[in-house]
Amino acid sequence: MVKQAKSAITPTREEDYPEWYQQVVKAADLAESSPVRGCMVIKPWGYAIWENIQRDLDRRFKETGHKNAYFPLFIPTSFLQKEAEHVDGFAKECAVVTHSRLEADDNGKLQPAGPLEEPLIVRPTSETIIGELFSKWVQSYRDLPLLINQWANVVRWEMRTRLFLRTAEFLWQEGHTVHATKEEAMAETRQMLEVYADFAENFMAMPVITGEKTEAERFPGADATFAIEAMMQDRKALQAGTSHFLGQNFSKSSNIKYLSAEGKEEFAWTTSWGVSTRLVGGLIMTHSDDNGLVLPPRIAPSHVVIIPVTPKDETRKQVIDYCLELKKQLQDQSYMDVPVRVEFDDRDMRGGEKTWSWIKKGIPIRVEVGPRDMEAGSVFVGRRDRAPKDKQSMSLKQFVGGIANLLDEMQASLLAKAKSFQKENTRDITNETEFVEFFTPKNTSSPEIHGGFASTGFCCDPELEENISKKYKATVRCIPDISAEEVVPCVFTGLPGKRVIFAKSY
Amino acid sequence: MVKQAKSAITPTREEDYPEWYQQVVKAADLAESSPVRGCMVIKPWGYAIWENIQRDLDRRFKETGHKNAYFPLFIPTSFLQKEAEHVDGFAKECAVVTHSRLEADDNGKLQPAGPLEEPLIVRPTSETIIGELFSKWVQSYRDLPLLINQWANVVRWEMRTRLFLRTAEFLWQEGHTVHATKEEAMAETRQMLEVYADFAENFMAMPVITGEKTEAERFPGADATFAIEAMMQDRKALQAGTSHFLGQNFSKSSNIKYLSAEGKEEFAWTTSWGVSTRLVGGLIMTHSDDNGLVLPPRIAPSHVVIIPVTPKDETRKQVIDYCLELKKQLQDQSYMDVPVRVEFDDRDMRGGEKTWSWIKKGIPIRVEVGPRDMEAGSVFVGRRDRAPKDKQSMSLKQFVGGIANLLDEMQASLLAKAKSFQKENTRDITNETEFVEFFTPKNTSSPEIHGGFASTGFCCDPELEENISKKYKATVRCIPDISAEEVVPCVFTGLPGKRVIFAKSY
Repeated sequence: MVKQAKSAITPTREEDYPEWYQQVVKAADLAESSPVRGCMVIKPWGYAIWENIQRDLDRRFKETGHKNAYFPLFIPTSFLQKEAEHVDGFAKECAVVTHSRLEADDNGKLQPAGPLEEPLIVRPTSETIIGELFSKWVQSYRDLPLLINQWANVVRWEMRTRLFLRTAEFLWQEGHTVHATKEEAMAETRQMLEVYADFAENFMAMPVITGEKTEAERFPGADATFAIEAMMQDRKALQAGTSHFLGQNFSKSSNIKYLSAEGKEEFAWTTSWGVSTRLVGGLIMTHSDDNGLVLPPRIAPSHVVIIPVTPKDETRKQVIDYCLELKKQLQDQSYMDVPVRVEFDDRDMRGGEKTWSWIKKGIPIRVEVGPRDMEAGSVFVGRRDRAPKDKQSMSLKQFVGGIANLLDEMQASLLAKAKSFQKENTRDITNETEFVEFFTPKNTSSPEIHGGFASTGFCCDPELEENISKKYKATVRCIPDISAEEVVPCVFTGLPGKRVIFAKSY
Repeated sequence: MVKQAKSAITPTREEDYPEWYQQVVKAADLAESSPVRGCMVIKPWGYAIWENIQRDLDRRFKETGHKNAYFPLFIPTSFLQKEAEHVDGFAKECAVVTHSRLEADDNGKLQPAGPLEEPLIVRPTSETIIGELFSKWVQSYRDLPLLINQWANVVRWEMRTRLFLRTAEFLWQEGHTVHATKEEAMAETRQMLEVYADFAENFMAMPVITGEKTEAERFPGADATFAIEAMMQDRKALQAGTSHFLGQNFSKSSNIKYLSAEGKEEFAWTTSWGVSTRLVGGLIMTHSDDNGLVLPPRIAPSHVVIIPVTPKDETRKQVIDYCLELKKQLQDQSYMDVPVRVEFDDRDMRGGEKTWSWIKKGIPIRVEVGPRDMEAGSVFVGRRDRAPKDKQSMSLKQFVGGIANLLDEMQASLLAKAKSFQKENTRDITNETEFVEFFTPKNTSSPEIHGGFASTGFCCDPELEENISKKYKATVRCIPDISAEEVVPCVFTGLPGKRVIFAKSY
């Protein structure tokens, strides 16, 4: 066995993709399971990625006129019941609060006490509680549009959980807006979908397809749901964000009415839209390799790690001073309007082990500095998008001066790579035989890996959709916006249909 | 009745302080009660204050080496039970989750279903769940110190709630750290208390006293609790932040052990510290007046509002353009390293009503611009720390160039004012008669207003403390750090005691 071929993550993507994912999360120290069923712990490196997501999205929300607010964690069961489809969608898996204190029983064991008159659920999403408040806030057309966002935790009692991708508790943002007309509400729904798509592509370097969902995949209570869908490296789709046109369904169930300029009382039109910590899962599966996490610079908690190499005690202090000066110079540079983020790692640890720990954490740039680099006024630079041993000596001045460009180049190259992967694994499928073959796992050791995104004509019959989904484990991810007007024959029925993307999905 | 004497808030502070507080919150549109018992809704202007608090504190936490992470919302009841004092403190009022779904009964009403094997509580604080994880994270002295912070929501089932000051659900941050030695843990406890005190004073312009709590007011499970205490305008104390030295209590109950450099297994030493949305309540009651909220510039969501005055249609567009140019010029200025935050308010509303809406919201600077100001190249400026009619005409250039200084001056003057208020209402009390008189409400229409902070000698006997608290409604707020070494006779017993601050409190 050739030593160089060994990867830092076992198993590799080819060997066992789901297990590879878990091992990447672990090796990068992003998150772990907790003793509370289905709830994860987001560790500092993982949480810093989420903070960067929050900061950039929050700026985009504010630039489009939204304001943040905070609503109660609990929802009375009677609220949930107001919207019939909504309750069907969420009552089956939710955390129910029934008591307000604990009391020790005769054996000293704590038991629920102080039963509540009406049970509360921990919010799985907040349309109903926010709707109740909006019905008071909105009185006249002058109060519209009402553009609100909330950063919060939500709970859906999932049984089969996977770190970041599906957890009982997760962190997210939920936008909730109210408009005077159908057109404005639809424009908002569309605008936020675009915000998500632009964010995914330009901040996370994760290319996405935007489009409308079929009825089967609509948000419970929505008139239309739009989504961004990304392709993971196992060629499965990840729904990475949704934007819902809620029509007047929630304004009717929550009684959100306004007095128009003409003095007429009208039901308002509402939207909601959200992304969650699931994005971190998408990030991992878009870029990472068999050596662990790969982070696009814009989203990386730190851009550069400086690792001093100090074989001799007599030059140790000088090397460290040189590193600290380098750190300072890098921090004086800015990238995307913020100072370059730098780690200095002088932990007492073997050099190889230390370097590999940063490769596994996905830091974009590693700089090693030893006595000879110091003497030459140079640095030894490794990039996470190149092979671990592919390192380059550069003058310190050139490295510092070019850092923003270097990071930009890496960002662009990761996006380009992900884009061509998506393109290569998207195929026009024109008949059912091709369809079946496309979704049959390839003959490798990893049964997960199959064709990818199938672009097909589909008549959108709900019953047929359900049958296909059961039979082939592939679902309609969306009716892509770019081909929404196209009329193509359905590959299953031959009837006139829309162009859709079928894929296996998370 | 003289018209000028009328205030925007009814009642005034003198007339009914608690009701004045509620009305200030309402008039500034900071928050409101929700249909969920005890849970408040934080509205955009109130939430923006919280975001500013978060941003500044987060920076301070990171500068002192802490990293953010996220832990589960739920805590198994068995975890709570591990620390005996802790469970006593929190089991009496907590939200208990007992079921994992809802099912419609025969009448179509949703009922809890899917009972959990072990009930969970919604975190009232996270020592026990975080301790469980830290016991895995900490193995060797090399893993220490472990310095973690969490921004989160917590729930304590309070029956008597008041917006921001005491709510069932509130937002907070909780720091949790692990150290190898007692000294390091105590230094951390002290450091974070100082961070809070500096933040309160220099960001919120809210002067505080720092000191240790007596046994009666200690955090359940702590060896020592330190707090920052601020004086509100009704002269009551508000505990605005706490820092706990937890000794080895939680490391023993959660089994947080490390292998020392000498190869010995040792129990670690832990701390925890937190501030919450209660700070917003403290902010309101420190600075606001009978015209509503007053915001120190550093914490204000916006610094300046520009109000166009457009009596004639023919000059309307020009005035608006002039205002937008002013907005741009102001945003190009920076205050405290960020761009000056500006609102432009061209709502269709009477000028007086519009100006008063901003006074009630506490915005530091109001700028009115009419056709004559435009012609003269000037602006008409009102400051929230001056009387509403006390406005000044200034050249636009001078105003823009001096904006950062003006904001700084207002920040400093609000702090100075709050400091002298605290000083004026703090008195050395040397005998019980004085003590009683000090805490007897003054003969005004507002029975709440009394003496303030009583600086007295106290023997710190717990039973006596409880009796005094029952009899006089005043409690020991803290043993102030600046006089912690002093030995003074107890005003009640004559025994040698410590100098403490007694006050009525929130």
